[in-house]
Amino acid sequence: MNKNYYAILMAGGVGSRFWPISTQDFPKQFHDMLGTGDTLIQKTFQRLADLIPKENIYILTNERYNDLVLEQLPDVTQKQVVLEPAMRNTAPCILYASLKIQKENPDALVIVAPSDHWIEDEATFSKNVEQAFQFCSKNDSLMTLGIQPTFPNTGYGYIEFDKTTKETIKSVNQFREKPDYETAKDFISQGNFLWNAGIFMWSVKSVLTAFKNNQPKLYRHFEAGISVYNTQNETDFIKENYPKAENISVDYAIMEKSKNVFVIAAEFDWNDLGTWGSLYDKLDKDENNNAVVNARTLSEDSSGNMIRTKNDKIVVVDGLNDYIIVDKEEVLLIFPKTKEQDIKKTLEQVKNKFGVQYG
Amino acid sequence: MNKNYYAILMAGGVGSRFWPISTQDFPKQFHDMLGTGDTLIQKTFQRLADLIPKENIYILTNERYNDLVLEQLPDVTQKQVVLEPAMRNTAPCILYASLKIQKENPDALVIVAPSDHWIEDEATFSKNVEQAFQFCSKNDSLMTLGIQPTFPNTGYGYIEFDKTTKETIKSVNQFREKPDYETAKDFISQGNFLWNAGIFMWSVKSVLTAFKNNQPKLYRHFEAGISVYNTQNETDFIKENYPKAENISVDYAIMEKSKNVFVIAAEFDWNDLGTWGSLYDKLDKDENNNAVVNARTLSEDSSGNMIRTKNDKIVVVDGLNDYIIVDKEEVLLIFPKTKEQDIKKTLEQVKNKFGVQYG
Repeated sequence: MNKNYYAILMAGGVGSRFWPISTQDFPKQFHDMLGTGDTLIQKTFQRLADLIPKENIYILTNERYNDLVLEQLPDVTQKQVVLEPAMRNTAPCILYASLKIQKENPDALVIVAPSDHWIEDEATFSKNVEQAFQFCSKNDSLMTLGIQPTFPNTGYGYIEFDKTTKETIKSVNQFREKPDYETAKDFISQGNFLWNAGIFMWSVKSVLTAFKNNQPKLYRHFEAGISVYNTQNETDFIKENYPKAENISVDYAIMEKSKNVFVIAAEFDWNDLGTWGSLYDKLDKDENNNAVVNARTLSEDSSGNMIRTKNDKIVVVDGLNDYIIVDKEEVLLIFPKTKEQDIKKTLEQVKNKFGVQYG
Repeated sequence: MNKNYYAILMAGGVGSRFWPISTQDFPKQFHDMLGTGDTLIQKTFQRLADLIPKENIYILTNERYNDLVLEQLPDVTQKQVVLEPAMRNTAPCILYASLKIQKENPDALVIVAPSDHWIEDEATFSKNVEQAFQFCSKNDSLMTLGIQPTFPNTGYGYIEFDKTTKETIKSVNQFREKPDYETAKDFISQGNFLWNAGIFMWSVKSVLTAFKNNQPKLYRHFEAGISVYNTQNETDFIKENYPKAENISVDYAIMEKSKNVFVIAAEFDWNDLGTWGSLYDKLDKDENNNAVVNARTLSEDSSGNMIRTKNDKIVVVDGLNDYIIVDKEEVLLIFPKTKEQDIKKTLEQVKNKFGVQYG
């Protein structure tokens, strides 16, 4: 295994559209959303560990999830868990982690990836990442894995690539924010747009150069701590300085501003598991086309439901179609799948009515 | 309080249409079905205790519910709990309990009543029972409280009374089994039919005379134990002989065969709480017309639902109307109210599919 390969796993999000399973205290990536016996972060870690030495996989997360990470990833040591003392979007934490990695290994090649996505074909994923790493080791480049769009989704950002090349690795023309429906349709008909899945690959040298050139202030802010990183004094410096960093995404901070951005169109099947409906799509269905996780069901005139509980609880459902039925100790949700985007709003109502502890 | 007043509370049934709350191990009468803080048997006991000395209230139930009775009715002593070693319908247990009561007090006046019905106006109930007791103390009679029917229910038996009299206490012409719909409509249009609620009143002397005359074999079977009743040897006799008794209802055994049967049309509001729908009817509704017990709800486009869980669990429901939503530790039921009669069938399916422990 290549000792220069590194990963930064992004594990600080909350995933509130998966409420009531995903909560502030116990977000989606730490749950076994697929009912496979592994949590999403465990699956992601295993996938990366095919290619990357385990000790080189860093977990970027919020302080409050430190124990969850160490518990669920027993191969990870505390030094691999990079804690954000405050929520400052993706650029500050990626910059900070990259400086740490560079100090340890200036030749590092790094993949930044979400901890909660679903990827079907792990071998192909590894192949695509390896291709990118090879390219990054020889070229000063910022790379991303783009997902072949299957419909005009307005919930993702898009990556427009140079359509004149036949190469696997294509130059990126521009990043596009979440489009409206007509624009998304137009993107798809043009044929050279991919979904931005938030998967980035680069040499640590290239990414730090990009930060230095495009975000000099932010770069200096974190570079000031270089002498204490990976030492006992790191925590104090970060506690003091991290909250002062600008709140900015890595896309906006460097990707959209750089000229040396490239993309590989992913050859694996991907799902961001962003909603109960997208989870339903990825799960096996029972004979009535219901997706069932941790439950035993008896259903009559009921199909298209996403049913989840715990301890194999018995769920008897009659005359219900295309519902999200999620049962946990203190909350039961019975919600139409077509309204899944409203769950965030519903969660706010629950917090207002019954108290924040339910979020 | 009149020391001759006695009660026999029937508490051996299971109420499987209230599954999954009501189960073989923990039937309906031992649950707080109304969310008032009292179980149905506690409410029934309190209602009877207005009129009848507590120590004269006997509980007829199955051996397996002995502990539940003593726990829920702390004023009741073991000698008041009459245990059926086997299920033999109502006649054997009423006969047996009556012999025990007669041995203790030959002047006893007894009401036999289900432990799981809902009665709105307890003062009027007491008044009607007192009227019946007065009549029974002076006349050799078997009395019942009939319920004024509000619609042609095919799930109840009917009592046809003598329409020529204007008296409160009317002579009964005959008992009629559960009718079909047309017959039930005909009964109601005739005006002299009442629902049989299974509430009987008589002197212990009259009921034993009725058994002796109409069920001489059954009478002799239990009369043979008279010397041991209310003694330490009673249990052995009952264990040996109870299972040998004929399986027969008190209606069929004596009421339908006797000439001295009278009825009072109950002046109180009554509900047998036979199904989730009838429970829904009796409960207070929230602003969306949902009946909620032991839950905190957030509902949208949802009305007419019967929602029950425990520990004030939060239930979020969207787009669901006229459903029974019952959540307990190991079972969640989401079932249309219109199909409530099918819950028994569903319970059988659950037992077959997942094991009898869920019934």
